[in-house]
Amino acid sequence: MTVEALRWQGDALELLDQRLLPDRISYVTCRDAVQVATAIRDMVVRGAPAIGCAAAFGIALDPKEASYEVLAKSRPTAVNLFWALERMRRARDKRAEAEAIFAEDLAVNRAIGANGAKLIPRGARILTYCNTGALATAGHGTALGVVRSARDKAISVIACETRPYLQGARLTAWECMQEAIPCTLITDNMAGYLMSRKEVDLVIVGADRIAANGDTANKIGTYTLAVLARRHGLPFYVAAPLSTFDAKIADGSLIPIEERPADEVTGYRGTRWAPEGVAVRNPAFDVTPAELITALVCEKGVVQAPDREKIRSLLD
Amino acid sequence: MTVEALRWQGDALELLDQRLLPDRISYVTCRDAVQVATAIRDMVVRGAPAIGCAAAFGIALDPKEASYEVLAKSRPTAVNLFWALERMRRARDKRAEAEAIFAEDLAVNRAIGANGAKLIPRGARILTYCNTGALATAGHGTALGVVRSARDKAISVIACETRPYLQGARLTAWECMQEAIPCTLITDNMAGYLMSRKEVDLVIVGADRIAANGDTANKIGTYTLAVLARRHGLPFYVAAPLSTFDAKIADGSLIPIEERPADEVTGYRGTRWAPEGVAVRNPAFDVTPAELITALVCEKGVVQAPDREKIRSLLD
Repeated sequence: MTVEALRWQGDALELLDQRLLPDRISYVTCRDAVQVATAIRDMVVRGAPAIGCAAAFGIALDPKEASYEVLAKSRPTAVNLFWALERMRRARDKRAEAEAIFAEDLAVNRAIGANGAKLIPRGARILTYCNTGALATAGHGTALGVVRSARDKAISVIACETRPYLQGARLTAWECMQEAIPCTLITDNMAGYLMSRKEVDLVIVGADRIAANGDTANKIGTYTLAVLARRHGLPFYVAAPLSTFDAKIADGSLIPIEERPADEVTGYRGTRWAPEGVAVRNPAFDVTPAELITALVCEKGVVQAPDREKIRSLLD
Repeated sequence: MTVEALRWQGDALELLDQRLLPDRISYVTCRDAVQVATAIRDMVVRGAPAIGCAAAFGIALDPKEASYEVLAKSRPTAVNLFWALERMRRARDKRAEAEAIFAEDLAVNRAIGANGAKLIPRGARILTYCNTGALATAGHGTALGVVRSARDKAISVIACETRPYLQGARLTAWECMQEAIPCTLITDNMAGYLMSRKEVDLVIVGADRIAANGDTANKIGTYTLAVLARRHGLPFYVAAPLSTFDAKIADGSLIPIEERPADEVTGYRGTRWAPEGVAVRNPAFDVTPAELITALVCEKGVVQAPDREKIRSLLD
């Protein structure tokens, strides 16, 4: 079964409601930009490339100035959103442009997969984080796309559950099971233990924004995995399309980090486990410094030991 | 309000059912050793020192050979359980001995608190893990006992939720709120981010078993915090009574690590979020090597940069 996070119907955008996975497959229909922005903010659709595609279709549905504004305010960290809005602004035929952004994202993910698969040894036990699969993109996926492209190498996946929103448990484990890719679910705090027991061969994650020096914002907890991978001498790969690079941001300290509502941390759906009134922090992303990244994988190829100069050449 | 994890009634042991916190305060009455062993295994009572006390009362209720066996099999990692059973075996008056173990644990925790409080700077933002408070002991707590003993220094607590069993969110946040100690709840994967933003001054955790060389088994995720603390140049303290030291175990690789049921990872209480049939790992503990531990705090004092020789002197 192919999972489709977005379905374009010409006069409406249908978004798979990822809040309900893996329990239920249900689509939300958006007919204007405000509805798309709300769906992005509320995480009906998530994943940096998928957010970019959704925003593009939001403009296609409703190409007025206010649409750009409401979509730009939906979520702050993933730069693909702003990249897509910028492309849409410059385009004459908004519908054709949104369709092109979507089609290109799928092609780009397949290229990332092919480039990344060369880095994956036979039999690798691959630790991954959050969801970077078909659900996070126009299809195939970024980091999980690399896993897909390497599946004939007898690989297996260790999926971190990814608190607080549980994208690993709900989405990545589900995608792997749909495709019969061997997958073991762990809580995020078990990654270090498995590394210390030599049960992990490499780590691969996606990205929400990559600064000009290679510092990478991604789902909260990514930085910790990079620190652990370094301690254990494991490769730490970031797979992302060029639309995730932000040459205007000099380093990771300048990437805006979204803080999300407390109720994502204090419980799940109707169940609450933390005491009423407790103070909560909920940063949705963190920044991994470039020096901890073994290589960046994008549609153009693999950038080993990324730095400012290599990224400048890549984006030229 | 004083929280009591265990209440000894002479002919019964009442255990606060920690599975129901913070929603409900309800005690389970145990009248024999099998009931106590079941309560330990099912985590009605948890925390290494509290498990030791519960096991001692289990023998007091039912001092036959089979009681030692069933209690010794209840949980494998925390050594306090075996320490308490050994003490009970040697004692003539089982009731008096169990009461002594309980009373000593409270006194020991107060001493740990006083010793540890000297390490805490004024205004420190203290990151802690799992629950090491009154609920995990006969009273006062180990790592959280140090926090309690330092509370006049305008400290604040950052409590990691501690997946999968959420002892941080359910128990530590609740204990802090009961005592009006400022506390912020985070998911475990946020600790690295807060450290990178210089929002943490030190880390203090408890222990389930400390090997002869200082390697420390504690709740899964502890090792990751130690690696992060090292990267950020932050002190990483372990607070535990001498009953948690296991001189018979040469190093951490020999400490048995309990694997617990999959349903703790796939959801919480009645709510399930992972897809049916997914493979799961659930190690309940990990091992932090001694070289990552700034100091051990016990009732005898503080052991800076613990190693085999210092621990041998300590236990002499």
